Amino acid sequence: MPIKTAKNRHHLMVPGFRAAGVACGLKKTGVEPPQGALDLALIISDTKAAVAGVFTKNKVKAAPVLLDIKRVKKGVSRGVIVNSGNANVSAGRAGFLSALRMASAIEKGLGLKSGEILVASTGVIGVMPAIEKIEAGAPGLIRGLSSLGLTDAARAIMTTDAFQKTATARGRIGGKIVTVAGIAKGAGMICPDMATMLSFIMTDANIKHPALRKALKEAVDKSFNSIAVDNDTSTNDTVLIFANGAAKGREIKSGTADYKVFCKMLSEVALKLAHLIVKDGEGATRFIEIDIKGAATISDAKKAAKTIATSMLVKTAFFGADPNCGRIIAALGRAGIRMKEDRVDITFNGVPVARRGLDTGKEKEAAKVMKEKEVNMTVNLGIGKAAWRFWTTDLTYEYVKINSAYRT
Amino acid sequence: MPIKTAKNRHHLMVPGFRAAGVACGLKKTGVEPPQGALDLALIISDTKAAVAGVFTKNKVKAAPVLLDIKRVKKGVSRGVIVNSGNANVSAGRAGFLSALRMASAIEKGLGLKSGEILVASTGVIGVMPAIEKIEAGAPGLIRGLSSLGLTDAARAIMTTDAFQKTATARGRIGGKIVTVAGIAKGAGMICPDMATMLSFIMTDANIKHPALRKALKEAVDKSFNSIAVDNDTSTNDTVLIFANGAAKGREIKSGTADYKVFCKMLSEVALKLAHLIVKDGEGATRFIEIDIKGAATISDAKKAAKTIATSMLVKTAFFGADPNCGRIIAALGRAGIRMKEDRVDITFNGVPVARRGLDTGKEKEAAKVMKEKEVNMTVNLGIGKAAWRFWTTDLTYEYVKINSAYRT
Repeated sequence: MPIKTAKNRHHLMVPGFRAAGVACGLKKTGVEPPQGALDLALIISDTKAAVAGVFTKNKVKAAPVLLDIKRVKKGVSRGVIVNSGNANVSAGRAGFLSALRMASAIEKGLGLKSGEILVASTGVIGVMPAIEKIEAGAPGLIRGLSSLGLTDAARAIMTTDAFQKTATARGRIGGKIVTVAGIAKGAGMICPDMATMLSFIMTDANIKHPALRKALKEAVDKSFNSIAVDNDTSTNDTVLIFANGAAKGREIKSGTADYKVFCKMLSEVALKLAHLIVKDGEGATRFIEIDIKGAATISDAKKAAKTIATSMLVKTAFFGADPNCGRIIAALGRAGIRMKEDRVDITFNGVPVARRGLDTGKEKEAAKVMKEKEVNMTVNLGIGKAAWRFWTTDLTYEYVKINSAYRT
Repeated sequence: MPIKTAKNRHHLMVPGFRAAGVACGLKKTGVEPPQGALDLALIISDTKAAVAGVFTKNKVKAAPVLLDIKRVKKGVSRGVIVNSGNANVSAGRAGFLSALRMASAIEKGLGLKSGEILVASTGVIGVMPAIEKIEAGAPGLIRGLSSLGLTDAARAIMTTDAFQKTATARGRIGGKIVTVAGIAKGAGMICPDMATMLSFIMTDANIKHPALRKALKEAVDKSFNSIAVDNDTSTNDTVLIFANGAAKGREIKSGTADYKVFCKMLSEVALKLAHLIVKDGEGATRFIEIDIKGAATISDAKKAAKTIATSMLVKTAFFGADPNCGRIIAALGRAGIRMKEDRVDITFNGVPVARRGLDTGKEKEAAKVMKEKEVNMTVNLGIGKAAWRFWTTDLTYEYVKINSAYRT
C-alpha cells in the first residue's frame, strides 16, 4: 500500500467519480473566462455516495459550511461544487442563497434532486459572492466532467497555494482493489481546528454512515487538525469524503479487519495532504515536526504541541536556525498543561538542546540540524505517558510579504 | 496633572528614592566591566516603602518572580535589584539560590535585613545565571546610587528595547505635591498576561497595603495587561510599586478622593509606560489602538481585543495597510465570544471598513488612514454595552529579522 502524491492524472482516478475545473472569472487575472485562472471545481459520483464531513469550529462559518453541515446529515450525496476567489462569509441570507444557487446550478444541470450537491468556497472574507459568474460557469463545468479531471479540480480550488495538493492510496479490501484519492488546498490561515483549507476525498470502497464518519473523524484529528501555519482558524474549513462503493467489495463495517485497512489508507491520504499544506505554508522554509512525549494526557500533549507550533517566537527562531529552547519552555508554560520546567528534555533531529529545562550548550550542533529542510523537535515533558504529533512551519519574511500584500 | 515622558533625569526624581545602573558583563559587548552595556540596576527607598506587585501568569516562572511573590506578601520593602542578559528561568534550586544571592549582595552592602530587597531578571531563558558577575558588580552599583540615577537604571534593564522607557506624573494629594515615576522595559514576548516586561514604579505618596495593591492591580489591568506585540507570554513579567510616603502627606485610604487622584496618576504612568512598550514593539511600524464596543460582557470585549491583537493575519494586513476586515471577522469568530458576524461594524481612524459584517468598499480611503503611524480600529459587536481598549503593533519583516537572529 505505497502512499504517494499522484504523479499524473491517471494516478488520481477513482472508479465511479468524475471531476472538472474551469475559469469563471472570480480570480482577477485580466483575462475573460473560459481563459484565465481556474476557480470553479466540481466532483461528481456517478451513483449515490455515502458522505461524511468535518468542518471549521470558528463561530463565524461560511454559508457553504452551514449548508453542508445540514446536507451531510442525510449521509448520502452526489458530489460537491467549489469556488475559489470568494469565501462567501458574512453575506447573511444573500450568502446562503448564493450557496443554494451554486448547488442548484449543478443539480439542475445534471438532473439531480435538490440537496444532492454540496458546496465549498474559499477566498476573501466579507465580500458579496458573484453568484452570476458561478452560474455562468456551471454548464462548462458539467461539460468538462471527466474521470481524469481531478487535477484540474485540485488547481481550481487553490488560492495562495504554490502548488496543487493530491494524494492517493490503493489497497486490497475484501478481495477487491480499493482506491482512496484526495485533493486539498491551503497555505495560510492554517490553525486547528482546522485551517483555511478544503479537502475532498473520494473512494470506491463500500462503506456507509456512521462507519465512514468515524473513519474520517479519526483521520482528520491526526492530520488536518494537527497542523498550523499561523494562529488563525478559518471560517471555511471543510473536509468531505465520498464513498460510492464502485469497487463492488463487501460493505466495510466498523471494527472489522476491512475497516482497519480502510482507516489506514484514509489516514495516510489525509496525512499526506495535511503535510503538503504545511510544506506549502505561506513563506515557509522549513517543515517542522513536533513530537510531544511524556505528557500527563493526550489533551495536554495536543495543547503543548499547538502552543509551540503557533508561537511567533518559536517560529522565527526556527527561521533563523536558532536553537532557542527558552522560547519553547516559555510556550509550554502558557499552554495550560501540567508541566515542571526542570523535567523538560528537548531534542532537534536527535541533538539534545535542553535537558531538565536547561540549555545543553550544544548550540552549534543544534543550529546545524535546524538548517535542514525538515526538522523533528521532540519535547519530553517527563510527567506521564501521553504523546501527540503535530506539524508546523517557520515564520519568515516571505510570510509577512505574502500576507501584507494579499489583496492590495 | 500633565503626563509626560521624562525629558531629563531631573523629571524622574522621586523624593526618598535613589537608583543606579552599571555594567557587570552579562550583556556580551566584548568590553570588560565597568565599561560596556549597562546590565545591572538598583532602586532603593531611603526608608521602608509599602510595596505591591503583579507578576506573570505563565506557569513557568523565573526564580526572581518566585522570590518576589513571597517577599511582597510582607507589604514592605526597601527596593529592587534587576539584571538584564539572563532571565534566570529553568535553573531550579540553583536559580533560586542565585536570586537570593542577588538580593543578599545588596542587603549586606546596605546593612539591610534579609528579605528587604526584591529581585528581577530579564534576558535569555534556560541558561544558568552568572551570579558571580552580578555579585562582583554589586559594590559599584551601591556606590552609584543617586537621586538622579533612574535613567541609568532604565537603560540597564533594556534587552531588545530600542529606547528607554520612563514616565512621571505629579499632582496634589491632601495638600502635598506627590510624584509617581516609573521605568519599564519590553519590546517582544509581549502578550497578556503580561509580557517580557519589567516595570518599577516609585511614589512618595503615603499609601499602604492593601490600598496600594488594589490601585496597582487596577492600573495594570488597563495598561500592561492590555497590550500585545506577539502571542508569547513571558516567564519574567513583573510590575512592582514602592510607596515611601516621603511627600509627608496624610495616608491615602481606599475609596477616598485622595485615593481617586492617586489611582489616576498611577494609571496614567502605567498606561504611558505600556504604550512606550508597544511603540518599541519589535519591528513595529504602527501603533494600533483597538476599541471593542458593543460586547456582551467586559470579558468578551477583552477576549475579542486580544484575539485580534495577536492574529498574525491581522497584524500583517496592518503592515501592508490592507483594510482586510475579513481577517478581523475571522479572528472574532475564533475568540470564544458571543457575536454574530452580520452585526459587526468596523472603522479605521473613523473610516467605515465593514458594516454588518460586509466590506463597505471604501478600501482606498481606509488604506490611506492605515498608513498613518497611529491607527484606531473600532470594532462594534452590536450585541451589548461592554467595551475594552487594547494596543498592539503590526507584524513586519523587521520583527522576523529581530527574532530569527536574537542570539545567533
